[in-house]
Amino acid sequence: MIEQAVPGRFERTVRIRFGHCDPAGIVFYPQYLVLLNGLVEDWVDQGLGISYAGLIAQRQVGLPTVRLECDFRAVSRMGEDVVLALEVERLGTRSITLAIDITLGTEQRLAARVVLVTTDLASHRAIAVPADLHAAILAFGPRTQSASDTRSTP
Amino acid sequence: MIEQAVPGRFERTVRIRFGHCDPAGIVFYPQYLVLLNGLVEDWVDQGLGISYAGLIAQRQVGLPTVRLECDFRAVSRMGEDVVLALEVERLGTRSITLAIDITLGTEQRLAARVVLVTTDLASHRAIAVPADLHAAILAFGPRTQSASDTRSTP
Amino acid sequence: MIEQAVPGRFERTVRIRFGHCDPAGIVFYPQYLVLLNGLVEDWVDQGLGISYAGLIAQRQVGLPTVRLECDFRAVSRMGEDVVLALEVERLGTRSITLAIDITLGTEQRLAARVVLVTTDLASHRAIAVPADLHAAILAFGPRTQSASDTRSTP
Amino acid sequence: MIEQAVPGRFERTVRIRFGHCDPAGIVFYPQYLVLLNGLVEDWVDQGLGISYAGLIAQRQVGLPTVRLECDFRAVSRMGEDVVLALEVERLGTRSITLAIDITLGTEQRLAARVVLVTTDLASHRAIAVPADLHAAILAFGPRTQSASDTRSTP
Repeated sequence: MIEQAVPGRFERTVRIRFGHCDPAGIVFYPQYLVLLNGLVEDWVDQGLGISYAGLIAQRQVGLPTVRLECDFRAVSRMGEDVVLALEVERLGTRSITLAIDITLGTEQRLAARVVLVTTDLASHRAIAVPADLHAAILAFGPRTQSASDTRSTP
Repeated sequence: MIEQAVPGRFERTVRIRFGHCDPAGIVFYPQYLVLLNGLVEDWVDQGLGISYAGLIAQRQVGLPTVRLECDFRAVSRMGEDVVLALEVERLGTRSITLAIDITLGTEQRLAARVVLVTTDLASHRAIAVPADLHAAILAFGPRTQSASDTRSTP
Repeated sequence: MIEQAVPGRFERTVRIRFGHCDPAGIVFYPQYLVLLNGLVEDWVDQGLGISYAGLIAQRQVGLPTVRLECDFRAVSRMGEDVVLALEVERLGTRSITLAIDITLGTEQRLAARVVLVTTDLASHRAIAVPADLHAAILAFGPRTQSASDTRSTP
Repeated sequence: MIEQAVPGRFERTVRIRFGHCDPAGIVFYPQYLVLLNGLVEDWVDQGLGISYAGLIAQRQVGLPTVRLECDFRAVSRMGEDVVLALEVERLGTRSITLAIDITLGTEQRLAARVVLVTTDLASHRAIAVPADLHAAILAFGPRTQSASDTRSTP
């Protein structure tokens, strides 16, 4: 279920399931965000080669979302195999901005910008992106890079 | 658990539960959006006096989110009783823009702008905001009003 | 939203929400179990007078479910205000067996038996039910009591 | 991620994700049941060769769970790749009883018996298992078969 073709782009096909859908028969939008979180996990694991579970559970580095912008452009229905794709829009010292979309064929269902920060899970305070993660993201190929990150974070 | 004090503002206190929280011990962000959806339901029911379940199930009018902007400003932990508050930022002919925040005391945890459209659940196409809903929102008191809505929606 | 009338019985009314329901228009059954978990939280907090969040987060005592038996007897729909009720069926040295049902009027929607164990969250191994919790459950009034608990638990 | 080796047994490997886990760092048990539901979907689609989404959305045949018995035997943690396995324990005229377990290596995490009934989604009343589904289950190979189903169902 993993396809990676374009450099700097991580893709994954996901089946829309019964449990993702609401009484309107379409994806309940918070479930889309559960899928986005899963995409980020797979990207860290497979796209960057760094254990996501290890990052959180062993290294106690959090990767919370601090900003989300999301356009829901068309509905998705149970049984569809949609493609989730992720690109790095910006790599800061303490934050990672991702552009994510969900498509089926040529139809875009969702387009999102997600800003993650790296945190110390003991304090939930932002910390510098760990060196191995930073290097792996540079190697993955962000669209743009930035040496400093002025965003204030929790 | 319902408090309404300020005109044009709908508030509700919600307990952060075990099931909302992640291995980092804080709210998993898609769960915040489940809470936002619940707030919109309660606002329609109690703030506007229109049955949300009736709107969806009997009248077959959908109220999907087409755009979401959300800043996650501070973490929320299990056992906290946070206050969700909703104001109407803009009422269009086919859309409703809400400003929602979540606070605990003076600390803002989340600030969101949510754009809903009214749809026909048979086709999932946008329709005019039903007259009773439109009138109830005007009576509730939006911050700003607009006679026309040029936003293109799915 | 809290009603307690019968000794040894803890009740709570919960609105079935859009996000609980599936494309069949009825509660998606894992969502019932999220509601059951919420009922247990409220019972510990309000019925027993012990902070559930404090138990988990400060005292590092877990309360996982080790066995669940559940009959789903009739469907629940969005907008219904169902009553969740809990009684203690058995109090062991390391386990608590609860009988829970969900009703609307005279119609039973769900009947469950839930076995919880108390665990050390560092090791996830079963431990004796803490003295304050044990005493509070005795005061609450279990249907039956047992001095020894022979159930093997993880 | 799909492996099928033993006749009459359907298996699937699933990664335990951040969003499945709770503040205790282990799978929140209702999330296990979301996984079980996904396994049933995949079994119908891939093990039986019948479109699950087609069954629900086009044919309006529901497949709700009417009884669940589940033992949670050991904890599962984020990042683990657990194996979900399904066997048919009994095929009735209106019901299907499944034995499902979740394992990691030789350790069983969960063992469940799930009774599904086939329903008419317009009325939510039990109907006979559709002929194609019945035949496919017989071909799949239930452990035991029964010509009549005396279970009373909603």
